[in-house]
Amino acid sequence: MSGQPLNLEGDIVELTRAICDIESVSGNEKELADAIESALSNYSHLEIIRDGDAIIARTNFGHASRVVIAGHIDTVPVAGNLPVKLLPMEREQVLWGRGTVDMKAGVAVQLKLAATLDKTNTDVTWIFYDHEEVDASLNGLGRISRNRPDLLDASFAVLCEPSYSQVEGGCNGTMRADIITRGLKAHSARAWMGKNAVHAAADILNRLETYETAEVEVDGLVYRESLNAVVIKGGIATNVIPDECTVTVNYRFAPSKSAAEAEAHIREVFEGHEVVITDSAEGARPGLDLPEAAAFVAATGSVPRPKYGWTDVARFSALGIPAVNFGPGDPNKAHSDDENVPVSQIFACEAALRTWLTAS
Amino acid sequence: MSGQPLNLEGDIVELTRAICDIESVSGNEKELADAIESALSNYSHLEIIRDGDAIIARTNFGHASRVVIAGHIDTVPVAGNLPVKLLPMEREQVLWGRGTVDMKAGVAVQLKLAATLDKTNTDVTWIFYDHEEVDASLNGLGRISRNRPDLLDASFAVLCEPSYSQVEGGCNGTMRADIITRGLKAHSARAWMGKNAVHAAADILNRLETYETAEVEVDGLVYRESLNAVVIKGGIATNVIPDECTVTVNYRFAPSKSAAEAEAHIREVFEGHEVVITDSAEGARPGLDLPEAAAFVAATGSVPRPKYGWTDVARFSALGIPAVNFGPGDPNKAHSDDENVPVSQIFACEAALRTWLTAS
Repeated sequence: MSGQPLNLEGDIVELTRAICDIESVSGNEKELADAIESALSNYSHLEIIRDGDAIIARTNFGHASRVVIAGHIDTVPVAGNLPVKLLPMEREQVLWGRGTVDMKAGVAVQLKLAATLDKTNTDVTWIFYDHEEVDASLNGLGRISRNRPDLLDASFAVLCEPSYSQVEGGCNGTMRADIITRGLKAHSARAWMGKNAVHAAADILNRLETYETAEVEVDGLVYRESLNAVVIKGGIATNVIPDECTVTVNYRFAPSKSAAEAEAHIREVFEGHEVVITDSAEGARPGLDLPEAAAFVAATGSVPRPKYGWTDVARFSALGIPAVNFGPGDPNKAHSDDENVPVSQIFACEAALRTWLTAS
Repeated sequence: MSGQPLNLEGDIVELTRAICDIESVSGNEKELADAIESALSNYSHLEIIRDGDAIIARTNFGHASRVVIAGHIDTVPVAGNLPVKLLPMEREQVLWGRGTVDMKAGVAVQLKLAATLDKTNTDVTWIFYDHEEVDASLNGLGRISRNRPDLLDASFAVLCEPSYSQVEGGCNGTMRADIITRGLKAHSARAWMGKNAVHAAADILNRLETYETAEVEVDGLVYRESLNAVVIKGGIATNVIPDECTVTVNYRFAPSKSAAEAEAHIREVFEGHEVVITDSAEGARPGLDLPEAAAFVAATGSVPRPKYGWTDVARFSALGIPAVNFGPGDPNKAHSDDENVPVSQIFACEAALRTWLTAS
């Protein structure tokens, strides 16, 4: 694809296919960022700013209000599923391949609208950013918020993350903790001289097995929580009684809870055990009671749902900007080897956003 | 110490100290093997054979019977505990430092007796071998049994492994198995779409926690068995529900049981779970009912005890040669950072073996 300019005004399915076929696994976004920058710079109604491999395209129509519409251009590693194929499925056509769901179909919608909407009812900041699929410290949106926080100023934000082209509001928080048991080393030939820390972890796993997950209503949406062991590790050699065992748990908690409340809950569940909190990110309330969000839901004709996964809407939430997920694709297909998006959802997303941005 | 010849006829405590101070962590036995070979070659009643870094010294007095007296010359890594110190403890003097217990005090006894006993009531094959503290495939005694099985011919064998200078007979067998649970991967934000294999391991740990160990009498000695998790491992990332968890267990079983019986027991304990046997070595019956062993116990005035750890007596047992452990030191101090041997036990071991080999 190298060198072939992107056609932002043609068929959106072809545009999705074109940007999927420019491989852009996290860290390798440059070629796609170059193509996006080059294509958008043809439009005089857009001011183009580049920050690393993130491209920001802003309208400056002079409206009192401004919205951000953002999407990441990187993907998880390719799994033999490029180039993208257009396949007939049972009842519909799909684009099949890496990035189609997470989230180049959404990026294609952004690109087409950025290019073709030279009149809107609000100013728009289109953001195409890098490094979303890797360590949070590398996240392009995070980098922009540190380098140029003014570029994120808005009264409302939309992330075109896959959500069946329906509004998914807010997101659960996430916290990781190590639950640790300690024992006493001994040679396994004389096991009774030691104390087995792995055996002691039975109690931790039993509590996880019998843990009852909560469903929590926040601003009218019901968030499903979960608490799971994600890693377990104990023992240093096959002839030594383990003196330490660590169960790493991941708690996904409703956005109505603070990190402090989540931590208190984890400590309560594992009372009597050593608990070390290792990682924490609060969720984002859906904020659908805010007028900007309500207007977006009405304009797109959506039935809002809760978002379970942590997404960058939480970054906007932390900046005080209400934000929702709205993009084509089934989020459960993200990262999967059979990642594919129904083309109908790409059209639906484009139409809904166009309606919202041009309604008088 | 390099270059300083070993004095095999002087004080045995000084000899122990000298060979401890020639560092010989497994793989680095050459200097000590050279010193032993050089010192023993001064004695015309000994035939010296070298195999790698193992030294074999044989008497050929023409007796109808022959015994093997063997010990390994390597140690586990040094822990800041060399050179050896002679320390006063509460009620006795000890030699303190790496190798004093496992098993250079025993090797010193062998060396002194090999040099000074130019008349014995049986022919003796003294063996000083390498690579006992590492993977069994490298074991010097195993290598000799493959290269020169004739050198191990004997009616009885003594290993000078630490056993408080008392007879410890036979050894438990050892078997390792992986007990595996399987689940279904999912993103931890949508945990309910997966099946957590680590949670499922609760059942395995519960069975280990409530497992009742057996004590089994074999040839008059009581062997204590054990079944322990030695390693647990599950999970590939902190945002993925684990689809596999492996608990590695180590079963130490009485020498009256075959490997097949031990395997059947493990499969019964973990019935309903996937079990993969990864490693197995049968134990050795103490054989104290055999006349050679009974004579040894009588001559050394020992109260025989069972040996729990697997030692190279099992190699002799497999060759049909009755064998016992008999050497200075507390086996629980082997490999420990405060490894130390009471000098009284070194003298006791030397005296007992001298009595046995010279009784008329």
